[in-house]
Amino acid sequence: MNAEIIGIGSELLLGQIANTNAQFISTRLADLGINVFYHTAVGDNSDRLKQVIEIAESRADLLIFTGGLGPTKDDLTKETIAETLNKKLVYNEEAMETIQAYYTKTGAPMSENNRKQALVLEGAEVLRNDNGMAPGMALTENNRTYMLFPGPPKELYPMFTNYAEPYLLSQMKQGDTIVSRVLRFFGIGESRLEADLEDLIDQQTNPTIAPLAGDWEVTLRLTAKSDSKAEAEKLIDETEEKIKKRVGKFLYGYDQTSLAKETFATLEKRNWTISSAESLTGGLFSQQITDLPGASSLFYGGVVCYSNEVKREIGVSNETLEAYGAVSEECAIELARSVRARYNTDVGISFTGVAGPDPSEGKEPGTVFVGVVSPLGEKVISLHLAGNRDAIRKRTAKHGLNTLLNLER
Amino acid sequence: MNAEIIGIGSELLLGQIANTNAQFISTRLADLGINVFYHTAVGDNSDRLKQVIEIAESRADLLIFTGGLGPTKDDLTKETIAETLNKKLVYNEEAMETIQAYYTKTGAPMSENNRKQALVLEGAEVLRNDNGMAPGMALTENNRTYMLFPGPPKELYPMFTNYAEPYLLSQMKQGDTIVSRVLRFFGIGESRLEADLEDLIDQQTNPTIAPLAGDWEVTLRLTAKSDSKAEAEKLIDETEEKIKKRVGKFLYGYDQTSLAKETFATLEKRNWTISSAESLTGGLFSQQITDLPGASSLFYGGVVCYSNEVKREIGVSNETLEAYGAVSEECAIELARSVRARYNTDVGISFTGVAGPDPSEGKEPGTVFVGVVSPLGEKVISLHLAGNRDAIRKRTAKHGLNTLLNLER
Repeated sequence: MNAEIIGIGSELLLGQIANTNAQFISTRLADLGINVFYHTAVGDNSDRLKQVIEIAESRADLLIFTGGLGPTKDDLTKETIAETLNKKLVYNEEAMETIQAYYTKTGAPMSENNRKQALVLEGAEVLRNDNGMAPGMALTENNRTYMLFPGPPKELYPMFTNYAEPYLLSQMKQGDTIVSRVLRFFGIGESRLEADLEDLIDQQTNPTIAPLAGDWEVTLRLTAKSDSKAEAEKLIDETEEKIKKRVGKFLYGYDQTSLAKETFATLEKRNWTISSAESLTGGLFSQQITDLPGASSLFYGGVVCYSNEVKREIGVSNETLEAYGAVSEECAIELARSVRARYNTDVGISFTGVAGPDPSEGKEPGTVFVGVVSPLGEKVISLHLAGNRDAIRKRTAKHGLNTLLNLER
Repeated sequence: MNAEIIGIGSELLLGQIANTNAQFISTRLADLGINVFYHTAVGDNSDRLKQVIEIAESRADLLIFTGGLGPTKDDLTKETIAETLNKKLVYNEEAMETIQAYYTKTGAPMSENNRKQALVLEGAEVLRNDNGMAPGMALTENNRTYMLFPGPPKELYPMFTNYAEPYLLSQMKQGDTIVSRVLRFFGIGESRLEADLEDLIDQQTNPTIAPLAGDWEVTLRLTAKSDSKAEAEKLIDETEEKIKKRVGKFLYGYDQTSLAKETFATLEKRNWTISSAESLTGGLFSQQITDLPGASSLFYGGVVCYSNEVKREIGVSNETLEAYGAVSEECAIELARSVRARYNTDVGISFTGVAGPDPSEGKEPGTVFVGVVSPLGEKVISLHLAGNRDAIRKRTAKHGLNTLLNLER
């Protein structure tokens, strides 16, 4: 199956939003082993959409449409497809009930426009919308599959995962199984990782190895094709072993995990509580940890010690601030010790440094110290980070998480 | 001029990245008054790219290509366009010098592949790359303009703004001036805003009014066309006045601003310092304020008081925690008072509530209290927010910023 993903909406062409729907669907289709050869975005214009459908039909057998299923007259995706396929639009009972229930609950008056959202393509399988009013649709005609999804990601994503993927699997011919695994690395740059693995990346065809950098991390996606899932997994395991031998110490996790999730799991496993003292990161670290459900069981509290008065108030000595400054190894370790003592946690972590854009205490932006005090001892990491203010702050928080992950090293 | 933006790279089709380049270029072209009718993404495949070029030539007179200008054999954008246009590729001296300088500086050996990056389309104007090696190109042939840009946003964005826009302006026929202004709203939903402005949105053609919702805010983009910039601005001013009469109290800013930036500016104008005590937001508020350069002048410090012990340690009374719980108006105000006193700031702000997924103290997720103590008095906002954990945390932080913006209301 070769797919084209067609995003409909003038907001895409005006740049008001990025086409993240196409990205999401592409990752899902990649996991199903369906090739995506084109993304197209077109405005709320029936004539142009008709031409786009014609072109897509000439080069793809799975056409996925996102957007344009709303109640307003701008929304014309299903109307245009109905015309192209010479199909009627018919009322769908279940969708109508969802819409009616919404208006009953909120007490708002329902307009004729809203009824329009319950219209679906005749003969289509209806994909339920658990988070909004417009239902999705799937229709296979002349060996070509048309799938329609609402534009808002919070409606589209669960609809795709819960209802569209099972539909697609049912349409797919039996054959190769495709398995994909993402290895996540921190602390090594993309070019260095690629250089270390160059021969593997070039020679390896099953699984393939696709590197990608972003958010100051690097990932490798291994994708294997085989008769069975077990065999594909085995091929991936073997390649992963080869990769680990060379760059294993930078590997921190798999697939949809994150440094924060892995750190959280590590702390949980050790049964350790934690507190933080953040200067340049201003709460980025604590925000990432507390973003995870259940954080209250191990994250007790934190201090955002932006000013030197607050650093003193926590417990950094005047001597340290005068002799070494706030941006120093000494300050980092005193902050970590003090916050750990104040909140009586197993681990105390601290962040101090210069985020920029201007130097501070004569130190350049990117000069950063991360202090950790834990039952395993004391540790300070000294960093010299490149990038702008935002990059320096985010990278610092990641280095903090990574330090917690590797306390024994 | 009608444009099509063509993104080239398998990473787009695999969903490894979103096509944010198309979004960025679209906003820039909208400001120049150039219509964008299509976005296309295609993989690193010469045959498919050729067909995409052919289709684009049939429907656009400005073809913008992003990606595929790198050193590897996957990168074939300029080679394919050269073939299509029957042009040679020639070495560009300036680009060659940039590449050579890079290798001299880093001491790494330069490969033949890297020389390839200095090749440009014969007759093209070269767009300098100030942040990387691959130069951009602009070429006008038979009333059609072809522009090529490197894929990495940090190279593309400044190249587009600094070199491509002047080129486009020089190519554009004199005529209408287009001016666009974005009004930003918080505290009102998209449907409510649209309902309140329905007649204006429907009837208004110059300027047009385009609503968009995202990140729990709503924006309206007003776009006016006229002979002069002053006249276009006047048309926008008039429409803005009409909008303000109806929903002005939810308007917080214009164009690229944010709630955090506006709050920062307001605090700065009043010459007020601030400190924060965050429970459910876990540092999200302080992180957003300290994200802005110069934050140290007004943000003194904060406490992330996730556990009740930490709330007590700051100054919440046992009586309050026992009688009302941590998720209460009383706790919110005591937190705000205590953190303000501890850090001796003009303003203290606090956040307490249930982020979910589970209820806490018998209170449902989304039950939130924001407390503010300032020279203007004390204030507690009580919220009942819908959405998942992430949404509740982010919306809470925004409500905090919005409360600070509207202290006098």
